[in-house]
Amino acid sequence: MALNGASGNGRAKNADHAPRPPEDESYGDSFPSSRKVHVDGENGVRVPMREISLQDEPSIRVPDTSGPLDGNPNDGLACPRGDWLRARADIEEVPAHYGSLGRSDLIPETLRRPSVLRGSGPVSQMHYAKRGEITPEMEFIAIREGLEAEFVRSEVARGRAIIPANINHPELEPMIIGRNFSVKINANIGNSAVTSSIEEEVEKVRWATLWGADTVMDLSTGANIHETRQWILRNSPVPIGTVPIYEALERVGGQPEDLTWEVYRDVIIEQAQQGVDYFTVHAGVLLRYIPLTADRMTGIVSRGGSIIAKWCMAHHRESFLYTNFVELCEIMAAYDVSFSLGDGLRPGSIADANDEAQFAELRTQGELTKIAWEHDVQVMCEGPGHVPMHMIQENMDKQLEWCHEAPFYTLGPLTTDIAPGYDHITSAIGAAMIGWAGTAMLCYVTPKEHLGLPNRDDVKAGVIAYKIAAHAADLAKGHPGAQRWDDALSKARFEFRWEDQFNLSLDPVTAREYHDETLPAAGAKIAHFCSMCGPKFCSMRITQDVRDYARAMAVSEGEALDVGMREKAEEFRAGGGELYLGQEDAVAP
Amino acid sequence: MALNGASGNGRAKNADHAPRPPEDESYGDSFPSSRKVHVDGENGVRVPMREISLQDEPSIRVPDTSGPLDGNPNDGLACPRGDWLRARADIEEVPAHYGSLGRSDLIPETLRRPSVLRGSGPVSQMHYAKRGEITPEMEFIAIREGLEAEFVRSEVARGRAIIPANINHPELEPMIIGRNFSVKINANIGNSAVTSSIEEEVEKVRWATLWGADTVMDLSTGANIHETRQWILRNSPVPIGTVPIYEALERVGGQPEDLTWEVYRDVIIEQAQQGVDYFTVHAGVLLRYIPLTADRMTGIVSRGGSIIAKWCMAHHRESFLYTNFVELCEIMAAYDVSFSLGDGLRPGSIADANDEAQFAELRTQGELTKIAWEHDVQVMCEGPGHVPMHMIQENMDKQLEWCHEAPFYTLGPLTTDIAPGYDHITSAIGAAMIGWAGTAMLCYVTPKEHLGLPNRDDVKAGVIAYKIAAHAADLAKGHPGAQRWDDALSKARFEFRWEDQFNLSLDPVTAREYHDETLPAAGAKIAHFCSMCGPKFCSMRITQDVRDYARAMAVSEGEALDVGMREKAEEFRAGGGELYLGQEDAVAP
Repeated sequence: MALNGASGNGRAKNADHAPRPPEDESYGDSFPSSRKVHVDGENGVRVPMREISLQDEPSIRVPDTSGPLDGNPNDGLACPRGDWLRARADIEEVPAHYGSLGRSDLIPETLRRPSVLRGSGPVSQMHYAKRGEITPEMEFIAIREGLEAEFVRSEVARGRAIIPANINHPELEPMIIGRNFSVKINANIGNSAVTSSIEEEVEKVRWATLWGADTVMDLSTGANIHETRQWILRNSPVPIGTVPIYEALERVGGQPEDLTWEVYRDVIIEQAQQGVDYFTVHAGVLLRYIPLTADRMTGIVSRGGSIIAKWCMAHHRESFLYTNFVELCEIMAAYDVSFSLGDGLRPGSIADANDEAQFAELRTQGELTKIAWEHDVQVMCEGPGHVPMHMIQENMDKQLEWCHEAPFYTLGPLTTDIAPGYDHITSAIGAAMIGWAGTAMLCYVTPKEHLGLPNRDDVKAGVIAYKIAAHAADLAKGHPGAQRWDDALSKARFEFRWEDQFNLSLDPVTAREYHDETLPAAGAKIAHFCSMCGPKFCSMRITQDVRDYARAMAVSEGEALDVGMREKAEEFRAGGGELYLGQEDAVAP
Repeated sequence: MALNGASGNGRAKNADHAPRPPEDESYGDSFPSSRKVHVDGENGVRVPMREISLQDEPSIRVPDTSGPLDGNPNDGLACPRGDWLRARADIEEVPAHYGSLGRSDLIPETLRRPSVLRGSGPVSQMHYAKRGEITPEMEFIAIREGLEAEFVRSEVARGRAIIPANINHPELEPMIIGRNFSVKINANIGNSAVTSSIEEEVEKVRWATLWGADTVMDLSTGANIHETRQWILRNSPVPIGTVPIYEALERVGGQPEDLTWEVYRDVIIEQAQQGVDYFTVHAGVLLRYIPLTADRMTGIVSRGGSIIAKWCMAHHRESFLYTNFVELCEIMAAYDVSFSLGDGLRPGSIADANDEAQFAELRTQGELTKIAWEHDVQVMCEGPGHVPMHMIQENMDKQLEWCHEAPFYTLGPLTTDIAPGYDHITSAIGAAMIGWAGTAMLCYVTPKEHLGLPNRDDVKAGVIAYKIAAHAADLAKGHPGAQRWDDALSKARFEFRWEDQFNLSLDPVTAREYHDETLPAAGAKIAHFCSMCGPKFCSMRITQDVRDYARAMAVSEGEALDVGMREKAEEFRAGGGELYLGQEDAVAP
């Protein structure tokens, strides 16, 4: 059986049975002291990691989401899942759905897939997990996360984690989203009616994953949505999510009331056959919830939510997403597309946080979760939005309870509305907190949020802010191994290994540039001080001087110290002070 | 009695009895739609606010820390406190301490103060507060914070808040630091041995306060410390803090072991006479705590802490700060300099957070707090540093308990170590959380932290990140009036008042630039959509369309809706679904 990763593509480099990439793949200018390495597992599983070389210290490995670093977007990526998919008896090859090939002038032959895979029934990771089967995807993830494969399986079976992995996305390096795993981040990209090209969007995917995006959502709404997505999928090592209602709306000329289940179904079948790994579906927006938004400060701010709300009101009926939910599940199960149950009524301002509309929909998300699970479809639930800090925990508590511990996937939340231009920061605060509380994936917000489309720099700024939030959450959750990275960097800092400090940063280039602005000379990078204090005042330098002394004192001079302290105490008392007396209760050395 | 604000300076503009500035003082390019206004109170109190003009909406007033906007640094600022200080019978004018005038080639006549003020006893705000006296400074703050002056007094008397307001700093616009007031932020500036000039530092103060710094610390360690500080104080509308041990160390040639109480005392008297409003004093670093740092990942990272530690070990004695603490209090009380009890053993890495060394010192800070209070010296306590999220609350709890509710003043904390170049973000997360928990002032961290000296852009980036953290904390604490600002911005956003959205941002210029990058045309700023979605997909636009409908439905169509819902339910059940039944428990419209 020929799989799409290989079909119509004779290039050895690109086929899933191509020779393995060399172990010294470099990250170029972005991570100058890193190379890509692979950890081998069972069943041809090869898990990529980024190895950072250090001076006089063992190198350290950190997670890697960048995908194969060499190659041409016209060829697409290699297909690590090809063999695994080929081995599954319940998957068949079928001609692609009519209309799913897209404009041939926009998609080269190498990226076209005239035949696609479809399950003869549910072929989801949850389906296998429930049967007790450990898939190669689960083995891959176990190595990636440093956990047992059986644990991965059990979390997926339970619905507490998902592996978004469409069987038509063989280029994928599998990852997992669940609160008992490291916190993940998503980067949104997408062209719009107003701006940006296919090429830019593909470049943004590679750029976002280079810096650490664990999944990417293609939110394109402009021209050539289908073609843009084909390019993105064939070049994405991470799961791709979409909001199919956007493309459906394009097909009916932009009038929400003209949408039908049939149009939508066509769209999702095509997208499933292209390989989209998860769909945001706003099926929780019910007709009776819409009036709950009438008195809001900012009404309905979710695009998908507002489209569905408009449809519901125009027809005075429940949406076709809700009434056809079971058929939707059946289609998604046959390709292993995961649900990201949209929060169409999420708050768009601090004033609207945690209101009746939001929580009403969350309950419905929970009920839909159960139905999806009955059909072996994997589910995560989307969450807010704009929420002040003291209301964040309530979101997590209710989501866990009402949605039966399905993974929570939140946008931020933004903890204040007053800083457009800096919403990567307003939201990184909320994201870190809700990540600690148990949110499994954080949807990034860029500095351009509310203002414009993110460019390359904005994508990077958003990804870095969210890597910070996710890692801070991992630390707070005590995720195994998370602190290793902090410790390596702090040790380098303490020992004035400047190059190591730069290279261990989430963004080595920026760290080095900032250092060089004040101390550009090469010698400054081996100096035991920095520009903040100069040589005399550097606390780290002084600390190094005192450290041996302190250590010796702690071990052998305990007695001498006691004597010294008593002397001081007497002296102080003689001076009329009572300070030392009070001190005797303090923590002893 | 001639006060330093007026003495030696004939310029009417600059004297404290100068004509009031016009009400239309503009913020120029930084806040294009804002003007400075003043709210008048008793005793000549005039509290500045920034008034933002909006389109078709009432203007909104927000806090203002920028000081007089016109004027020349060579003249210094006007002196709003001049009359108040003049009225105090317990304050006398004395010749400045020898050596306190600085190099005449570096300080113009207009900024020199050959005579200074000194209290005949304690003249601190706490002293008056304890006596039941409401000072003009307290009245000023009451208006600024929107609270009763009596409440301000009682919090200061109790030690739960401080008003850092040296009697030799008449240029000051008084502010308060306490957890029952809005959360404040501090910006650090300062030249170092390696780089930066006096002019740059003065410019940084004005720049930092323009964007919202509530206090500024001058951490200069290089040449001309005294002269730099004189320029800064005469041009600062906000309290200035210093770490006097830095200047003392300069005087003994940079050798910590050569420091003496006498040298240090000279320094603090000179700085008190210059008008420094608070001193960081690392008196809590005790000899027996030093061995507790020996096994740390990053030892002692506080400059002041490491200097004192080195002194203690060289002499095998408790530091002169600790043994002379009472005399220190007496000096500070006579000028109303507040303590910022330094945390010399704060953790410098995630690995060292909340360790024995840190908490041992915190207990001592608490004991020193009580002694300072006995001498009517106002006190805040400094805190970490680097702390993962799950350990933040413990810091606050212990500080409140051990330090008797004296205001907490924390550096960040940074919630992870892995992002040098982005520590304004790693720390804004921790700052927002600890601010919510009760920290009264947040010391900013710039993107250059650990790497170099902040330039103008870094100062702004740090201030904005910390304004976000402080405001997020105010929202979470339910500070009266905090949400007004968010609501005004969100309403502008919902109504597509783009100009208002920009102007209400913490940084209007950046917000506008980001918008214009994708939609530069003037028409785009009155358009009811933006570049993210284009006209068709804009959720806000759709929401406006559905809003009236929804509202009507909620009021009058409840019955029709019920009928509609029942119909849908039957249809769904007929299709084999059970979804709707489950929905009936959901929140009713």
